[in-house]
Amino acid sequence: MSRRHRPTAELFADARTGDRAAIARLLSLVERGGDEAREIGRLASPLGGTAYTVGLTGAPGAGKSTLTSATIGHLRKQDIEVAVLAIDPSSPFTGGAILGDRVRMQDHATDPGVFIRSMATRGHLGGLSLAAPEAVRLLDAIGRRWILVETVGVGQVEVEIAGKADTTVVVVNPGWGDSVQANKAGLMEIADVFVINKADRKGADETRRDLEQMLDLSDLPHDAWRPPIVPVVATEGKGVVDLWDTVLAHREHITTSGELDRRRAFRLREELREIVARRLEQKAREIATGEKWDDLQQQVLERQLDPWGAADAMLDGIGA
Amino acid sequence: MSRRHRPTAELFADARTGDRAAIARLLSLVERGGDEAREIGRLASPLGGTAYTVGLTGAPGAGKSTLTSATIGHLRKQDIEVAVLAIDPSSPFTGGAILGDRVRMQDHATDPGVFIRSMATRGHLGGLSLAAPEAVRLLDAIGRRWILVETVGVGQVEVEIAGKADTTVVVVNPGWGDSVQANKAGLMEIADVFVINKADRKGADETRRDLEQMLDLSDLPHDAWRPPIVPVVATEGKGVVDLWDTVLAHREHITTSGELDRRRAFRLREELREIVARRLEQKAREIATGEKWDDLQQQVLERQLDPWGAADAMLDGIGA
Repeated sequence: MSRRHRPTAELFADARTGDRAAIARLLSLVERGGDEAREIGRLASPLGGTAYTVGLTGAPGAGKSTLTSATIGHLRKQDIEVAVLAIDPSSPFTGGAILGDRVRMQDHATDPGVFIRSMATRGHLGGLSLAAPEAVRLLDAIGRRWILVETVGVGQVEVEIAGKADTTVVVVNPGWGDSVQANKAGLMEIADVFVINKADRKGADETRRDLEQMLDLSDLPHDAWRPPIVPVVATEGKGVVDLWDTVLAHREHITTSGELDRRRAFRLREELREIVARRLEQKAREIATGEKWDDLQQQVLERQLDPWGAADAMLDGIGA
Repeated sequence: MSRRHRPTAELFADARTGDRAAIARLLSLVERGGDEAREIGRLASPLGGTAYTVGLTGAPGAGKSTLTSATIGHLRKQDIEVAVLAIDPSSPFTGGAILGDRVRMQDHATDPGVFIRSMATRGHLGGLSLAAPEAVRLLDAIGRRWILVETVGVGQVEVEIAGKADTTVVVVNPGWGDSVQANKAGLMEIADVFVINKADRKGADETRRDLEQMLDLSDLPHDAWRPPIVPVVATEGKGVVDLWDTVLAHREHITTSGELDRRRAFRLREELREIVARRLEQKAREIATGEKWDDLQQQVLERQLDPWGAADAMLDGIGA
């Protein structure tokens, strides 16, 4: 029996013992959606709950991969295991293709304590916003305690995915204001921590003032977490320890305050709503291609039936 | 019994005798959606089928209202009755408010052969794309033979609504290229007739060449209708007769070729699909606010159930 056809349950059991090929295969199945993905969800769901996710996002070129790599290095020095999901909604390619380009990440390619995986759009639009939390659940279930979710870009989908992490790190550069004007509000909304990467460049102080000012204006509640701003030079590893300590401080804050539980419950509600909407869309497509549809449409054309009456008849039997 | 509470069927009967207040009231009910709108649809559906719709769209300031008013004048000289729906998806106001500003239209306000009505967004997004065809069906059912549907703007919704007419007129001005760059493709796709309004201004010839070139590139089938380009100076009534003759020529063309029937069947299919999608959305909202949802979400949080399993359970009983 070829590896390709190992049953999902067997792959899942192997993944839990640390079999990297099995983990990669399971993530491919999750990415693809379909029956196996559903089975993986059923297997993973009861086992997880201990992983903590850190989202990283920022404009292309902001140095997210370098920062991720430096962060991995910091964690590995303390013998902490880590999984990285690098998500690029704008890319039609999957897994290996992108990963091959991520030279910095290659430093960790042979380290069994590090699992790095790229995910890209497969099949229909918006698929990643459902596939990403499923991938996180899988990694959680097989025992990964720290999951970094890196998204490439500052578009709506990227911001949405990064914002679903427990702690979200927004990476900017000196002079960022000009490049991400469009989605500044979205980034401000999801940021728990700001990193000014390439902080040795001109304009870093100005960028910090810019961020502080926006935070002043954002009208945080009195006892809320105010996103700290951490200057970093990722290529030299400078500021990476500070960044991680800040992430841990945020984690402590939201765990103690109960905010973490509220966030997770909210995220789950959003995810469930999205799954239900997706299922209903699918149902609508099925309805719209059936024979009954053609008959009813003909009746409307011949004015024996009005459109809403036809819709009633189409939906009849599914109680909608 | 106050007019406000006249039963829908009574309003409908009155509207068919030409009672303008009854027509206005019915259109308000259509705009609002809801049970009365459904009843109006049921009453109107068997009666229509003889109206012809002409869509007019173009960027704000292109002179659509002036053109519409001049066209009404041309039709009234021949004693042809006409109804105008002026649709502004970007406006939160309805009926009278916009209409009051439409000074040019006022010329026809006291003419019983002209019925003018503005429709704006009421309630939820996209509502107009469903309300517009229902309003057309109502006007058709009460005996209006010519219905002009004017949309303000060149956004996606405007283009969509205007494109649902039997003949669609796209109004541009000299130098239009710069102002509507964003949605040129959408306008090219829906146009059956181009009007260059303000054709006495500089750049009219260039705009014509620009349009001709785009039509050359658009790869029309050999025997297809090539949208004519009609120069007009609406404020002086120049070119309005040409425009209407062109509309009539297009009508003749699509009636003879069978294209009109195909368009209407296609439009109806789209409308039905949208109604079904709307109904399913509504259902999803109902599901997402019910008690069952809360229970299931709790089960997922407690890892007794996976999200897709929860979605299955939520949709259980509606067969989706």
